[in-house]
Amino acid sequence: MGRIYSKNEKAYLESIGIRIRDLRIKANLSQEKLAFACDLDRTYIGSVERGERNISVINLKKVSTALKITVSNLLNIDE
Amino acid sequence: MGRIYSKNEKAYLESIGIRIRDLRIKANLSQEKLAFACDLDRTYIGSVERGERNISVINLKKVSTALKITVSNLLNIDE
Repeated sequence: MGRIYSKNEKAYLESIGIRIRDLRIKANLSQEKLAFACDLDRTYIGSVERGERNISVINLKKVSTALKITVSNLLNIDE
Repeated sequence: MGRIYSKNEKAYLESIGIRIRDLRIKANLSQEKLAFACDLDRTYIGSVERGERNISVINLKKVSTALKITVSNLLNIDE
């Protein structure tokens, strides 16, 4: 939290957040339910969806497993 | 460093490390050259390749940009 990212980095984190939010809604999951399925905190999921977190691969794996897709698919966004 | 990962998490980090190492060698880059292209430390690249680091998406983006592939492609491994 509080780290300053470059404009491109911030845009990348935001695009990942939007992707996760879209997939979560498509899976008909609330932030609470996704967080519970990932064993992560709801506020953490919220901050990832807002592009505020530089999420690690292990947490990406948890989120993608809960969404029943691969990490590669989760990150399959325009870069 | 020093964090304890589960067996599955460790295996996942190791598979990412092997993937990055394979792609780096295929691109004919030393760890030093890849690190320089990513603006990361050589010892950091080494520890990622050994599966010792829970790499973040921003660093994955730096590595994949230096390897001229997408993050999604970089993480396109058996899970």
